[in-house]
Amino acid sequence: MSVQQREKLEAILRQSAFPPDIDLGEQRRLLREVASAQPLPADVSVTAGVLGGVPTAEITVDGVDARHVVLYFHGGVYVMGDAALSADLASQVGRRTGARVISVDYRLAPEHPYPAAVDDALAAYEALLRDGTAPADIVFAGESAGGGLAVATMVNARDHGLPLPAAAFVMSPYADLTLAGATMETKRAADPLMSPRALHDRVADYVPVPDTALGLVSPIFADLSGLPPLVIQAGTHEVLLDDAVRLARAAAIADVEVVLDITPGVPHVFQAYYPVLDEATAALDRAGQLLTAHLGSALGQVTS
Amino acid sequence: MSVQQREKLEAILRQSAFPPDIDLGEQRRLLREVASAQPLPADVSVTAGVLGGVPTAEITVDGVDARHVVLYFHGGVYVMGDAALSADLASQVGRRTGARVISVDYRLAPEHPYPAAVDDALAAYEALLRDGTAPADIVFAGESAGGGLAVATMVNARDHGLPLPAAAFVMSPYADLTLAGATMETKRAADPLMSPRALHDRVADYVPVPDTALGLVSPIFADLSGLPPLVIQAGTHEVLLDDAVRLARAAAIADVEVVLDITPGVPHVFQAYYPVLDEATAALDRAGQLLTAHLGSALGQVTS
Repeated sequence: MSVQQREKLEAILRQSAFPPDIDLGEQRRLLREVASAQPLPADVSVTAGVLGGVPTAEITVDGVDARHVVLYFHGGVYVMGDAALSADLASQVGRRTGARVISVDYRLAPEHPYPAAVDDALAAYEALLRDGTAPADIVFAGESAGGGLAVATMVNARDHGLPLPAAAFVMSPYADLTLAGATMETKRAADPLMSPRALHDRVADYVPVPDTALGLVSPIFADLSGLPPLVIQAGTHEVLLDDAVRLARAAAIADVEVVLDITPGVPHVFQAYYPVLDEATAALDRAGQLLTAHLGSALGQVTS
Repeated sequence: MSVQQREKLEAILRQSAFPPDIDLGEQRRLLREVASAQPLPADVSVTAGVLGGVPTAEITVDGVDARHVVLYFHGGVYVMGDAALSADLASQVGRRTGARVISVDYRLAPEHPYPAAVDDALAAYEALLRDGTAPADIVFAGESAGGGLAVATMVNARDHGLPLPAAAFVMSPYADLTLAGATMETKRAADPLMSPRALHDRVADYVPVPDTALGLVSPIFADLSGLPPLVIQAGTHEVLLDDAVRLARAAAIADVEVVLDITPGVPHVFQAYYPVLDEATAALDRAGQLLTAHLGSALGQVTS
């Protein structure tokens, strides 16, 4: 069953992959079209909000405990995507942790290059703490660039003397904007969505190339000491596989608790395809169990 | 509580670490003394057996389902240790998978250098299959050198056309006998038990140095394609941390399902200290959950 699911999904993704050489405006339009096609589950509501001056989408599954918060960062290589477009996947994290989700609409490049995204993410987290949410009741989560940003924001928060969240969950983190992972080449044919060239074309929108190895841009190069437990997931059919592996290694070297959880034969941010892919549901379930344990006295998950 | 546990354990281990420059006979005697000090849980029984001509210890927790088998490989850098000495830790894996454990007393170097251990491991597995145990009812497990041997034996079994077990669980695998992991140096001060020099002194007992990079000696260099799901655990206070990380990476590259689970501040094969270390119990519980899922229709775990 699942082999069929994987093959069908891959065929669809290859057809819908962005054509090369289109401009960013068109890429943004196509992403919106693809991401909007799937309706939200009936028990999920999305409300616009503001946190620390940064726009957010509050994503709530009926019946969750308002005490726990997932601070969520969407993907889109720092130049596209938005909080509402990732609401479906973000809601799955909220569902499995019994938490409400606040997804941060950080500013995008090239209109707002680095450090705009990093600044907005930190401002949102600071405001969440200032509003009285205990750090132990918060987990960070993010997908792709949002996974990198989640980790960078913990590094940034630590360096600003802020308390850190209970844990973080990152899906297919984009964590090395120098694009130096070996899987950039070795997984190029297997990856139906991403390519080194497509990534390369967008890096300079966000950050001047000499700065790509900064720790707040590419957290695999940051000192990760003091970070809370990390749950890192990736598929093996993605050029960013090595970002996930090297992020786990950097965390382990820095004495951080980390679970690296690799699912074979699935693409970048495969968890988003949970309605048609058993592996996605299973991976989200495993992450939810680990996060719930770190959230301590969570009242339990909301079953779908 | 757990910080105290970790510090106390580390102090004890540093005191009991093998003094440098003692001969192998003395090392074996000291290991037997240390490992025998802890009595087995009252509900665990150990019986001598033979499998494919290889001596074994059958380790059974009262009440487990006899259908499921953990084929276990003990540690001791291929030159010391035995199945009975690892019975306590092995029984914890059996307890959490509801399986009986067969621990393989493979031949040791220098009396029996490579490929004696690899041959014995394969012979035992072949005999287990020939006796009618379904591969889906088997998981491999091992600690340190036994973790490396468990993975090497799956590679070997695959190359011999044998069906593979449902999953494997390796604790602090010794998976690179070229000793090339960066943590050989960067974790040397933090590791209370192992040192690059102590490892180096024993490598040549097992295998001539030019052969240390063979896939059946150092599975991080093997093609791991086709292997079943791997659960890899390690602590951050060990020079072998990079063996675990690079084994996970090699598995992911080869499209193998893998969970790398890193616990901070704990030493080599920290799971063995479960009576005095909360992190050990938690890690064994996580591994047990993953293995039980892969064993399919397991009847459930035996609570301690």
